[in-house]
Amino acid sequence: MKMDKKIKIGVVGMGRIGKLHTENIIRNFKNVEVKAVSDVCIENAKEWANNLGINNVYEDYQKILNDKEIDSVLICSSTNTHTQLIIESARAKKNIFCEKPIGYDIEEITKALKVVKETGVKLQIGFNRRFDHNFSKVRNIIEEGAVGQPHIIKVTSRDPEEPPIEYIKVSGGMLFDMTIHDFDMVRYLSGSDVEEVYTTGAVLVNEDIGKVGDIDTAIVTLKLKDGSIAVIDNSRKAVYGYDQRVEVFGSEGSVQVSNDTDSSAIISNKNGVISEKPKFFFLERYKDSFIKELEDFFNAVSNDGKVPVDGLDGLQSVLIAKAATKSLKEGKPIKIL
Amino acid sequence: MKMDKKIKIGVVGMGRIGKLHTENIIRNFKNVEVKAVSDVCIENAKEWANNLGINNVYEDYQKILNDKEIDSVLICSSTNTHTQLIIESARAKKNIFCEKPIGYDIEEITKALKVVKETGVKLQIGFNRRFDHNFSKVRNIIEEGAVGQPHIIKVTSRDPEEPPIEYIKVSGGMLFDMTIHDFDMVRYLSGSDVEEVYTTGAVLVNEDIGKVGDIDTAIVTLKLKDGSIAVIDNSRKAVYGYDQRVEVFGSEGSVQVSNDTDSSAIISNKNGVISEKPKFFFLERYKDSFIKELEDFFNAVSNDGKVPVDGLDGLQSVLIAKAATKSLKEGKPIKIL
Amino acid sequence: MKMDKKIKIGVVGMGRIGKLHTENIIRNFKNVEVKAVSDVCIENAKEWANNLGINNVYEDYQKILNDKEIDSVLICSSTNTHTQLIIESARAKKNIFCEKPIGYDIEEITKALKVVKETGVKLQIGFNRRFDHNFSKVRNIIEEGAVGQPHIIKVTSRDPEEPPIEYIKVSGGMLFDMTIHDFDMVRYLSGSDVEEVYTTGAVLVNEDIGKVGDIDTAIVTLKLKDGSIAVIDNSRKAVYGYDQRVEVFGSEGSVQVSNDTDSSAIISNKNGVISEKPKFFFLERYKDSFIKELEDFFNAVSNDGKVPVDGLDGLQSVLIAKAATKSLKEGKPIKIL
Amino acid sequence: MKMDKKIKIGVVGMGRIGKLHTENIIRNFKNVEVKAVSDVCIENAKEWANNLGINNVYEDYQKILNDKEIDSVLICSSTNTHTQLIIESARAKKNIFCEKPIGYDIEEITKALKVVKETGVKLQIGFNRRFDHNFSKVRNIIEEGAVGQPHIIKVTSRDPEEPPIEYIKVSGGMLFDMTIHDFDMVRYLSGSDVEEVYTTGAVLVNEDIGKVGDIDTAIVTLKLKDGSIAVIDNSRKAVYGYDQRVEVFGSEGSVQVSNDTDSSAIISNKNGVISEKPKFFFLERYKDSFIKELEDFFNAVSNDGKVPVDGLDGLQSVLIAKAATKSLKEGKPIKIL
Repeated sequence: MKMDKKIKIGVVGMGRIGKLHTENIIRNFKNVEVKAVSDVCIENAKEWANNLGINNVYEDYQKILNDKEIDSVLICSSTNTHTQLIIESARAKKNIFCEKPIGYDIEEITKALKVVKETGVKLQIGFNRRFDHNFSKVRNIIEEGAVGQPHIIKVTSRDPEEPPIEYIKVSGGMLFDMTIHDFDMVRYLSGSDVEEVYTTGAVLVNEDIGKVGDIDTAIVTLKLKDGSIAVIDNSRKAVYGYDQRVEVFGSEGSVQVSNDTDSSAIISNKNGVISEKPKFFFLERYKDSFIKELEDFFNAVSNDGKVPVDGLDGLQSVLIAKAATKSLKEGKPIKIL
Repeated sequence: MKMDKKIKIGVVGMGRIGKLHTENIIRNFKNVEVKAVSDVCIENAKEWANNLGINNVYEDYQKILNDKEIDSVLICSSTNTHTQLIIESARAKKNIFCEKPIGYDIEEITKALKVVKETGVKLQIGFNRRFDHNFSKVRNIIEEGAVGQPHIIKVTSRDPEEPPIEYIKVSGGMLFDMTIHDFDMVRYLSGSDVEEVYTTGAVLVNEDIGKVGDIDTAIVTLKLKDGSIAVIDNSRKAVYGYDQRVEVFGSEGSVQVSNDTDSSAIISNKNGVISEKPKFFFLERYKDSFIKELEDFFNAVSNDGKVPVDGLDGLQSVLIAKAATKSLKEGKPIKIL
Repeated sequence: MKMDKKIKIGVVGMGRIGKLHTENIIRNFKNVEVKAVSDVCIENAKEWANNLGINNVYEDYQKILNDKEIDSVLICSSTNTHTQLIIESARAKKNIFCEKPIGYDIEEITKALKVVKETGVKLQIGFNRRFDHNFSKVRNIIEEGAVGQPHIIKVTSRDPEEPPIEYIKVSGGMLFDMTIHDFDMVRYLSGSDVEEVYTTGAVLVNEDIGKVGDIDTAIVTLKLKDGSIAVIDNSRKAVYGYDQRVEVFGSEGSVQVSNDTDSSAIISNKNGVISEKPKFFFLERYKDSFIKELEDFFNAVSNDGKVPVDGLDGLQSVLIAKAATKSLKEGKPIKIL
Repeated sequence: MKMDKKIKIGVVGMGRIGKLHTENIIRNFKNVEVKAVSDVCIENAKEWANNLGINNVYEDYQKILNDKEIDSVLICSSTNTHTQLIIESARAKKNIFCEKPIGYDIEEITKALKVVKETGVKLQIGFNRRFDHNFSKVRNIIEEGAVGQPHIIKVTSRDPEEPPIEYIKVSGGMLFDMTIHDFDMVRYLSGSDVEEVYTTGAVLVNEDIGKVGDIDTAIVTLKLKDGSIAVIDNSRKAVYGYDQRVEVFGSEGSVQVSNDTDSSAIISNKNGVISEKPKFFFLERYKDSFIKELEDFFNAVSNDGKVPVDGLDGLQSVLIAKAATKSLKEGKPIKIL
C-alpha cells in the first residue's frame, strides 16, 4: 500500500467487529493510527484498548468527532445508529467506513447519503466479502470475459448455527442481517442492479425463530436489470460449517468457487475418502477480506481515490432486503424501488 | 435380474429413443424378446429392425396390440399420442412403459390413468434420471437419513446446445420438454409432492427462441408439501457440455453429485490445472440409466411387482410443468392443482 | 467394431478370468462365437457353459486345437501352461489371446515367441489395464505432446486385501503376480523399454507373507532407455479399496488420473466432507477394459491387423519382474537383459 | 503466543531469507525486537533496515555477539559459515535459529552441536515446511493414528524453474539444496530415522546442469528404521508451478495433501474444466510457515521450552543428503552413518 500521509482514525462501537477492525489496523497498517475508540459501555473495552496502546477511550463518540486530528471514523456501532453517525461524521469532515447494513430506513439512508455528498467526505460500506480471494477472483474472471455474458448467478450462503433468538428479534430478520451480504454479492458479481425479487422462506431449523416472526431457510430469486437471473439459498444452520459458494453461468462458460478449508488433507480409510469441513464461520473464512477492505479504504482516503463500495451500494442492498421481506410477506415478486 | 418368464414386447415409435430402448433390450435382456416394432414412417426403421433380427415391422401399431403373444408395449411415439396409446394398450391388456411426458392435457392423462387402474396393467413412465448412478445414490443417502430432514433441494440442469426452433415450437416449451425431468427429480429426491411453483425466465441464449414464445434460461422455485424448498436452474446452452448436478441440504448435512466425465485425467500445465468436460449429452451421461429403468420395468412385469415410476408420477410432473408455465406468464407463484 | 467375418473361438481354462472373458464375448460380440471351452476340472464349468449355450465343453484342450472351425483361442489356464499352449495353438494355426504373465521362464517364452513368429498367427497378451479409460487417456495425452517429454512416471497400485498364502506360494511373488501389470503400465505410458530396476521391499501387511519368502509392500524404481525415470509403489492391502493411479510428469506439464468410484456423491456433515471409496477391486474397476482388449484382439484377427499388446510386451514385463526380484534379493539395482 | 519476557535478537545475513525473517518478526511479534542486523555487504541492507526502524546495522557480526542485551541470533548467512557462527553464538550465550542446511561437513556439524550442548543454548534449524498447514496436518493425522502404522511415505517436490548455474555450482547439488527439505519431511512425517537411501538421477531439464556435475530430476528411495519405505520425486522445473505434495499410506488408510492455490475458482468452458495452478514458489506457498517456525522458536526461548527442530534434525538431513549423493555416484544403495 502506498500512502502519502499518516491517517488518524477513531473507531465508534467496540463490539466484536469494532475490536476486529482495530486489531487489524494496528497489526497491518503502519501509516494508520487508531487515535481513539468509543463505546456506550466503555468499561468492557478500556483495558483491551489500553493494552493495544490506545489511550483515548471514550463513552461519547462526540469526542472522536471533535478531535481535529482524526480524519476518518469507523462506524461499528449498532445498525440503528448508523445513519445518524454518518451524518454527524460527515459534518465533522471525517471520512467514513460504516459497517453493513447502512441502516433500516430508506428515508434516513437517503438523507445521510445526501449529507455525505454535500460534505464531500468518503463513505465506504463494510461489504467485506467483495474482498474475499475467491469472490474477487470470480469478479475478475467475469470482467475478463472468460465466461461471457452472465446468465445465471447462484449464491449459496449458510451459517454454521443460528444466532440467539434475542439477536433475531432486533436484527431486522434473516433477509436483513444475513441475506443482505448475498444481495450485495449478486450486485458485485453481476455489475448490475436488481429489478425484482421473489422470496420463498421456511422455518425448518428452529421453530422458535418462526415464533418471533422470522424465517431460517430461504430461496430468493432476483431479476437483474441486465436481463440475467440470480438465486440465493440461505440457511441459518449448516451442521458441516459455514457454506459460502458462488457460481456464475454465462454465454461462454461458468465459474464457481467452493469453501476454504484449513488444509487440503484427504484421508482415505474404510469409511470413505474424507476431506476437511469448511472454515468454521465468517471470522475464519473472511479473515483476510476484513484487512483488504480497510486497505482499500485507507488508500482511497490517503490518495483521494474512489472507495470500492460506496453509499449507493449500501442503499441498494437495503432496498433489495426490504423488497425481499415484502415478497415473503405478500407471497409474490416485488419490484425494487 | 431374476425373471420367472420370458417377456415379449412391442415397441411403438422408432425415433431415437425407440431405437435406443430396442437395442438396449436386445443387448441386455436375454429373457425379453422384441417381437414387433411399429412406426408411422416405417420405411426408415425396416432395415435397421431386420438387421437386429426383428421381423415384425408395422406401420400400424394396432398390429402390436392385436398380437396375443405380446404382453408389454413401449410407447416411444410423439407425446400427443401417449394418452390414447396408453388407453388402447391397457384395454389390450398390455403392460406399458411410456416415455415422458405422459401427455399435455390433464383431462386426457386422468382418463388414461383411470383405464390403467381399471384394467390392472402396469404403467411405468420413462423418467430415466431416477436410475442414474449419481441421483439414485443421493436418494439412497437421503433415505438412510445421512443428511437428516431435507430443507433445500437444488437441481442444475443445462443442455449443451439448444434444440432446433422447429422442435421448440411443438415441444410445449422448455418447462415442458426439459424442466419436466427436473420436476420429477425434485419429487424423487424429496419423496414429497409440490405445493407451489414460481418461475423466473429469460431469453438469453437465442433470441429466436423468444420469438416463438419460449424461454431458454430459468430459475424455478418450488414449495414442497413437506415444508422444504427446491430450486431448479436451467439453460438451453452450456458451452462446456451437459451440466447435470443436484444438491440436497438437510438438518444433518448435505449431499451433492457432480457431472460424469470420460476419464479422471487432470493435466497441469502453464495454463492451469485442467480436467475433462462433462459427458456430452443425455445419451452419454444417462446411458446406463436407460437400461436400468427397463430392468426394473421387466422385473415388475415378470414378478408382478410394483413399477418404480408410475402414472401418478407422470401426472404430477405435468401438473407442475403447467403451473410453472402459468407462473411464467402471470409473473406470480402458482399453486399445483 | 467392423468385422469382416464371423470368428469362432475356444477358451482354455475356465477359472474366474476364463469365465469373465466368455461371458463378455457372448454379451458384447455378435460376430464372435464361443464354440468350445475346456478345463482340466470340467465338471465345475459344464452347467455354467451349457446355460450360456456353449455345447462343446472339453476336459482336453486338444479337442479345441483339433477343431478346424475354431480360428482363435483364449488361453486362461494357469501361468505354467501358457508357453506350451501358445506353441501348440500356434502350430494348430490358431490366433492366440493369452492371459498375463506369458510365462515364468525366459527360455520357454523366447521359444514360444519364435513359434508364433514362424507360424504367423497373432498373439495378444492380456494386459487389460492398457484399455482402461483413465490409463489410455493418459497415453493419448502423452502422445499428443500435451505434457512434453516424460521425465517422471509414477504408478500407484495397491490391492484391497492380500491373496491367500497358498496363492502367494505359487504366484511367483508379488513382483510377478501384481507388479507385472505396473511394469507393463510403465512401458505402455512411456513408450520406452526399461534399462535398470531397483526394488525396496518390506513385509508390513502380514508377516505370514514374509514367512513364505515374499514381500507385501514395495517401491520399485526404474531407469528407462529414453533417459526418464519411473517409480511404482505397491501394497497388498489398502483398507480403503483398490488404489490404481498414475502420474506422468514431463517437460511441458503433468497428467494424473485418480480412482473410479460408483458415484460422485459427496456428503458434508459434522464429521467432514466425505466422498466414495474407489471401486472395490479389479473386476469392478477394470470391467470395461476386459471387453475393450478383446474388441481390439477380434478386430486384429478379423481384419488381419496388428494386436495392441504383443508377445514382446509379454516378454519384457517378465524380464523386468525377474530383474526386480533379483534386485530385491541382492539389494542393488539390476540391469534388464 | 504467550511470552514471559521481551526477546531481543540480532540477524546475521541480510539476503532474501534474512530480510524475510526480519520483516516477519517486526510485523508479527510485538514482544520481539530486532535490535541489530549484520551483513558482509552491509550497504545493500542499510537503508532497508533503517526504514524498518532498525538502527544497528553492522558489517561485522561480532558486534551482535558482543551485545549483551541480545539474547538470540538468527543465522541467515551462507551455508559455509553456519557451523562457525553456531559455535561463536553459543559461546556468546545466544540462542540460535539457523537456516538449513546446518552445514556441509559432518565433523564441523558434530563439533558445533557439541558446543551447543555444552553451553546449553537453544538451537533450532529452519526446516519451515514442518510448519506448513498441510504438512503439519498430515503429521497430526498420523499421530492420531488415523491411518494406522505408516507403510509408504511419498513426497513430491518440484520447483517451478531451475536456479542459475552459478548457484548450482556452489549449492552442493540438488540433493543438498533442494531434496534436503524432503529428507527432513520424511523424518518429520514418519517420526523415524533413515537407514538406507538409493538415488536414481537424471539430467532432463537443462543439460548445462549436467555439465557442472549435477542432476535436475531424481527419484530417491529410503528405507526407514521403523521398517517402512519412503520415496521422493524431484524436478528442478515444473512448468505449472511449485509442486509440493505428500502422501502417507498406512495400515488403516492413507492421507494426502495437495498444492495450495490463490483461489478455489474453477472455470468450465469449451476447453475443459480449469482450476488454478499451485502458488508460484516457496515464498508464496510457505509464507505462513516462516512465521510459525519463528513463533515456536521465540516460545521456546521465552519459556525455556524445547525447540521443535533441533540440531540433530539438522545433522540427520545432512547425513541423508550425503548418502544420497554417494548413492547417485556409485549406483547402489548407501547406508546412513
